[in-house]
Amino acid sequence: MLEEPKKIIIDTDPGVDDAMAIFLALQSPEVEVIGLTTIYGNVYTTLATRNALHLLEIAGRTDIPVAEGSHVTITKGTKLRIADFVHGTDGLGNQNFPPPKGKPIELSAADFLIQQASCYPGKVTVVALGPLTNIALAIQSDPHFVKNIQQIVVLGGAFAVNGNVNPAAEANIFGDPDAADVVFTSGADVLAVGINVTHQVFFTDADRDKLAESNGKYAQYLCKILDVYYSYHHVAYSTKGVYLHDPTALLAAVTPSLITFTEGVVRVQTTGITRGLTLFYNKQKRFGEVTEWSDKPSVKVAVTVDAPAVINLVMERLTNS
Amino acid sequence: MLEEPKKIIIDTDPGVDDAMAIFLALQSPEVEVIGLTTIYGNVYTTLATRNALHLLEIAGRTDIPVAEGSHVTITKGTKLRIADFVHGTDGLGNQNFPPPKGKPIELSAADFLIQQASCYPGKVTVVALGPLTNIALAIQSDPHFVKNIQQIVVLGGAFAVNGNVNPAAEANIFGDPDAADVVFTSGADVLAVGINVTHQVFFTDADRDKLAESNGKYAQYLCKILDVYYSYHHVAYSTKGVYLHDPTALLAAVTPSLITFTEGVVRVQTTGITRGLTLFYNKQKRFGEVTEWSDKPSVKVAVTVDAPAVINLVMERLTNS
Repeated sequence: MLEEPKKIIIDTDPGVDDAMAIFLALQSPEVEVIGLTTIYGNVYTTLATRNALHLLEIAGRTDIPVAEGSHVTITKGTKLRIADFVHGTDGLGNQNFPPPKGKPIELSAADFLIQQASCYPGKVTVVALGPLTNIALAIQSDPHFVKNIQQIVVLGGAFAVNGNVNPAAEANIFGDPDAADVVFTSGADVLAVGINVTHQVFFTDADRDKLAESNGKYAQYLCKILDVYYSYHHVAYSTKGVYLHDPTALLAAVTPSLITFTEGVVRVQTTGITRGLTLFYNKQKRFGEVTEWSDKPSVKVAVTVDAPAVINLVMERLTNS
Repeated sequence: MLEEPKKIIIDTDPGVDDAMAIFLALQSPEVEVIGLTTIYGNVYTTLATRNALHLLEIAGRTDIPVAEGSHVTITKGTKLRIADFVHGTDGLGNQNFPPPKGKPIELSAADFLIQQASCYPGKVTVVALGPLTNIALAIQSDPHFVKNIQQIVVLGGAFAVNGNVNPAAEANIFGDPDAADVVFTSGADVLAVGINVTHQVFFTDADRDKLAESNGKYAQYLCKILDVYYSYHHVAYSTKGVYLHDPTALLAAVTPSLITFTEGVVRVQTTGITRGLTLFYNKQKRFGEVTEWSDKPSVKVAVTVDAPAVINLVMERLTNS
């Protein structure tokens, strides 16, 4: 490849599918992972940091810095919703891995994001796999961040479909709706990959068996931690297989041609029974009245995904080492 | 027809397309219109009552009682949104018709609904073409109403599409979101016909020309009042034609086979930027946590409509007298 790899920072709450996405990024020549930042979501932030360090040690990539993110939502005092029932109490399939040897860097996640975006203006993409607190804090702290960052790929939202926390809200947006609204209305180049798209990317029992047959270290590791994640899907969705949320969002950054998107204004409901709902305005109707969507910048919202190609890439890259 | 005509009460805020729906009902042998109840929406309630009486006089059906409805939302003090810019300041295309001779009955709309449902238990269908205040008041005032009423056909909601008041909300639900939530969660047999469906029923300029060629009194009358409604659509939607919201909902009651529907729980957001949003839960996912949709009764939500058949029925019945 002649093109310089795209620099990416993964903001993550590992998380079984976060682990898949992180390994996938490390195995993707199109991108250079210049850091992980951590956030609550699948686990609390402290554990997310521990898991991020652990995963980099498994990968032999302790050269990549980990910056610990916020422990609370941007409008403090909100009770966090931690999805340990999806990923295991340790976030990694209840495998009780030994603690990592490494430590996070001194910079906070938001400050690390600001620093890297400023060092490489227009060249850093954030792939946000958890609630958007760190990204919103970076936006609020540094007026140049929105201009400096190349793109923010958000795994989040449920566009014109039911959510996965409740009928209205998807988990990452529900985790910090105020932060999500800050990100979506910031003017940054935002690409949202919602569960309307990631639910099309289904990793079956047969896919898992194929993964298990590989001797690759990533495949072997992932097969250990996938049990809890499969069980959750079986109960919640009556499916034999799992949704590849985080790997799909990651690949949308790595190989943008895998998805198609539409453009419009996204606002997030922050109160009431639909708290965490993402509402996309397609700009087809001209409203006579000023609305909460008027004069807000547009973002990109993924509409379709080449699901077989995603599964193939996941399989190929996670079994070849 | 051997079958007894279905008794219907039209709750209405006339309104250009309300006028079409009322005339259509009067021309439909499948139903017997046993009353009109009035509500704010396209116009204030006082004017809605005046227009309802006027339309019955045009039709020569002053035998049908008109009961005046609420002038305010169920949680009083909400500023009303009156869509006179869609229908004209008089609600009927700015034609300045003379005042009607008739008067509304003494009963309020809610009391009339309760009385009729109680007189003919299981035999009265309400077709609600405006905000749902009157229906919610009937539900709240009489614990038997939900059981006595046959069906409540609601023209309202924007299911998985943008609204028409703002990107989140459809006008009738936005008019009184609290009332709408009462109706949707009441346990009554509710069929919601949202703009996701009514936007499929498009009455073109050519259709209007065809209507104008008819010498029928309804066709002649409607052609007079349609101008403002066409102008609004041209500006707001860049379309050459209008959506037949109210006639479509009316026909869903008259000829149920014209639509298909799905079933699930609908809740209405009552606060914040998505106030008036209708959120349908399809019950495909089992949520581990209790949600605001849990243990609520299901309603029917229209999914498809046989649009050409609706247009044909409208044309046929509005030109044959």
